[in-house]
Amino acid sequence: MAPPSRYHDNNGAPAQNVVVPAEEETEAPPPQCENRLDPNEFRRQGYQVIDFIADYYARMGNYLVHPRVTPGFLHRQLPDHAPSRPEPHAFAAALQDVRDLILPGLTHWQSPRHFAHFPASSSTVGALGEALIAGINVVPFTWAASPAATELEMVVVDWLGKALHLPSSLLFGGGGGGTLLGTSCEAILCTLVAARDRKLADIAGKGIGDLVVYCSDQTHFAFHKAARIAGIRRENCRSITTHHGDMFALSPAELDAAMRADVDAGLVPLFLCATVGTTQTGAVDPVRELCAVAAAHGAWVHVDAAYAGSALVCPEFGHVIDGAEAVDSFSMNAHKWLLANTDCCALWVARPAVLVAALGTEQEYILKDAAAAGHDVVDYKDWSVTLTRRFRALKLWLVLRCYGVEGLRDHVRAHVRMAAAFEGMVRNDARFEVVVTRWFSLVCFRLRSPESLGGEKAANELNRRLLEEVNSDTGGGSGAPYMSSAMVGGVYMLRCAIGSTLTEERHVREAWKVVQDRAASLLRKMEIIACREVAK
Amino acid sequence: MAPPSRYHDNNGAPAQNVVVPAEEETEAPPPQCENRLDPNEFRRQGYQVIDFIADYYARMGNYLVHPRVTPGFLHRQLPDHAPSRPEPHAFAAALQDVRDLILPGLTHWQSPRHFAHFPASSSTVGALGEALIAGINVVPFTWAASPAATELEMVVVDWLGKALHLPSSLLFGGGGGGTLLGTSCEAILCTLVAARDRKLADIAGKGIGDLVVYCSDQTHFAFHKAARIAGIRRENCRSITTHHGDMFALSPAELDAAMRADVDAGLVPLFLCATVGTTQTGAVDPVRELCAVAAAHGAWVHVDAAYAGSALVCPEFGHVIDGAEAVDSFSMNAHKWLLANTDCCALWVARPAVLVAALGTEQEYILKDAAAAGHDVVDYKDWSVTLTRRFRALKLWLVLRCYGVEGLRDHVRAHVRMAAAFEGMVRNDARFEVVVTRWFSLVCFRLRSPESLGGEKAANELNRRLLEEVNSDTGGGSGAPYMSSAMVGGVYMLRCAIGSTLTEERHVREAWKVVQDRAASLLRKMEIIACREVAK
Repeated sequence: MAPPSRYHDNNGAPAQNVVVPAEEETEAPPPQCENRLDPNEFRRQGYQVIDFIADYYARMGNYLVHPRVTPGFLHRQLPDHAPSRPEPHAFAAALQDVRDLILPGLTHWQSPRHFAHFPASSSTVGALGEALIAGINVVPFTWAASPAATELEMVVVDWLGKALHLPSSLLFGGGGGGTLLGTSCEAILCTLVAARDRKLADIAGKGIGDLVVYCSDQTHFAFHKAARIAGIRRENCRSITTHHGDMFALSPAELDAAMRADVDAGLVPLFLCATVGTTQTGAVDPVRELCAVAAAHGAWVHVDAAYAGSALVCPEFGHVIDGAEAVDSFSMNAHKWLLANTDCCALWVARPAVLVAALGTEQEYILKDAAAAGHDVVDYKDWSVTLTRRFRALKLWLVLRCYGVEGLRDHVRAHVRMAAAFEGMVRNDARFEVVVTRWFSLVCFRLRSPESLGGEKAANELNRRLLEEVNSDTGGGSGAPYMSSAMVGGVYMLRCAIGSTLTEERHVREAWKVVQDRAASLLRKMEIIACREVAK
Repeated sequence: MAPPSRYHDNNGAPAQNVVVPAEEETEAPPPQCENRLDPNEFRRQGYQVIDFIADYYARMGNYLVHPRVTPGFLHRQLPDHAPSRPEPHAFAAALQDVRDLILPGLTHWQSPRHFAHFPASSSTVGALGEALIAGINVVPFTWAASPAATELEMVVVDWLGKALHLPSSLLFGGGGGGTLLGTSCEAILCTLVAARDRKLADIAGKGIGDLVVYCSDQTHFAFHKAARIAGIRRENCRSITTHHGDMFALSPAELDAAMRADVDAGLVPLFLCATVGTTQTGAVDPVRELCAVAAAHGAWVHVDAAYAGSALVCPEFGHVIDGAEAVDSFSMNAHKWLLANTDCCALWVARPAVLVAALGTEQEYILKDAAAAGHDVVDYKDWSVTLTRRFRALKLWLVLRCYGVEGLRDHVRAHVRMAAAFEGMVRNDARFEVVVTRWFSLVCFRLRSPESLGGEKAANELNRRLLEEVNSDTGGGSGAPYMSSAMVGGVYMLRCAIGSTLTEERHVREAWKVVQDRAASLLRKMEIIACREVAK
């Protein structure tokens, strides 16, 4: 049990939820540990943190996935200034406040009932890999700045690429190469800048304002953000409309038409961001056909497989990247569904030299690594936006080694099975429909609108209310699931994204029960309203 | 003791340094833990990791700071593929390999004898804060996606800003606001893009190719990289020459002249990146005067205080940002010298709306947070390159709370005192000179060239050899320090950057002793060569 906190709110009144000693603090602060990396202190506090996290996992089922809080709830409970000197037993008191003040105000992404967005999949090894990285705390911006970190990164991106059945053209072993970044937006930005600079060197008399980038209306905003940052004109970003009949995949014919129209208008096709597993519905763009179109126009093809890339660990999903040997770059987030904890985005490029030409440093007198010159190692500072970087390779290496490729397959397949089961339950209830074909572990579904309601707008409103009721369900106490929504082609739908490490079949069944119950209640209310209107 | 690893090298031969069982592995793999976040398993493996890190700190003094390895040393010892199934006791075996294979090949940034680059300062609380972040693993891209994480970030950036004596114009409390990013390059890139988009909206008839950005020849490459990524033409990046007489600070008069010349040429001054504490020598650009020049030309001013920002926690350093109330944005790396472990870059902006206008999303139907609309909270996805982000605020909050502002001052002042002592030792040895005035905890020094040698080029070569000898010193076994170099105004110098958490006065004295010994040996060799040449 931690000692009482001395936290007060901004007005000096005791903060809500925080135990405050009855009398003024008069004891002298304990002597500070002079060595802030003292091994014994580290061990003592480290065990506390490990126990804290283990307890959090053990109690995860008791938390509401999404907190019932209003903006400012935490701000009001914290002081205006950092303390001048730490309170006695500050670390234990702070952990107590994490438990009492912060955890209840978080969305619990590790909850087995978190079905919103995409998973942020954690594992024991992934979390402890991060702890190890932070403890060792090296900064491998060049090979020399931490040789083993650079070499492990080179090894582990090839390991992962092979585990995902990527074409060898993207691996170090095949002339390409990979790196570990924070997020997909960074990966897209880096490759877009590389493509941009290469293209600008090739097109005399034209400039950055003439470059056009392409995606579908299902592509994640990360691409639009990257394009803006890279200086592509907003009006030169083509979001090609997708259709339900194509399962919301980008049409190669429409891409070709768009590129031709731009060329005819004197513009220059630069870059296509194709998606394998879109955020809204998990749609898969046809990589082979899109590469053929892009190649005809000299455009770079990047495949963003942020979520679904993890599924490629299973050979049965390999077909979703058929033709990937023609792509220029490929990225996926191992922190989304491959047990690697946030953050861990793997990026592979077919021609690393183009990336380095765009992002490499010039201040060689500081950073140049004489030892590495002429050898088969890289300086990763030249592969990304950032110069400072974390030793993410250690975490991914631990995950691959301790779970094994087959273990990761088991993990992915279990979620895919649960998603298939959820999809089956939806299909078996005539009040509902599965809106788009499921590829991976994301199910998009909705209530069919009763005939008395009529109209797409009313159906959307009905499903919006259904999601609100599901997410604020209190019937089951903390047992309510947390889902999110998508709006595609004018159709509002609920998204059930299965992928939390703690999710078991029973959580999926219970979630479906909540959806059914809330739907029944909602439909009953509407019937009553309809009856009243008839009676009027 | 961990069981033997089954690692083999790429040719199937047992890898060097790795114990391999004498016979083929025949036992069945142990049953896998089905729950990869099982609390008991987490606790068991978590204690192992804590012990591992504590042992690493305890033995830190025994490691060579910089490993004697050649490119490929680790690559050769690792298999070509990830294992299909984990070996028995894989986690313990992997930790053993981290100890035996990886640690000996790292540059030990936490060593008390690491004086190269800038510190990557670790602390018990910073490292364990990272562990806690990874264990909880939430993704606070909007307020709703984890309310407490967003609110804690808003609180803690104001806490840090106040602790650093930043002007209130940069704090949420004063109309500005801050966020926690990974690195300075991200901070500069985000503010540059915000400035660029605002300027482009204001200048009819001109485009991105007309925009010019400014820095000094001492500005870190991160700025050039950010400018390239943002699409600023390479020829429109002005690196203004600094001079020894100005202590390598950017001259406001020269900035003004450069901006005037560009305006006269029909170009548009966009952005100044001023530095407080340059990478090479710790130089300080005069913020107030530079802001006045930039304001006259309508240019955005960003202050990059990546390293020296931490020193602002001490009021005696406040004068180095005199006039900062006029800056548009300010960033510093709490992971460099403020015990916050990598990564933790704090960015503050005076007008958050300009940042959000440039980086905000449009896919509101997915990401919009109805709960937060109209309230005084932010969606941090609109403040940075990345959408996915880590809960860095938790770490920084723990550091501020557990060490207190006075504790951080003690930490910074101890290093400044050690640097002053090192500087004094250099000044007391007539063979050496301190090349630039010391501001913080970085000492730039060199051997004076003996008269017999003559010439700047020869002096540079002498000092280059001195650094090589210091860094490869084996006389003291693992006791050799590790320093880096700078080349400023044609002068090569050694950099002794003091800031490792474990560094004590004795390490600084011992480092100086090594420098003196290697210098004496080097000068003796040169005398012998000179004598022989005379004798010829």
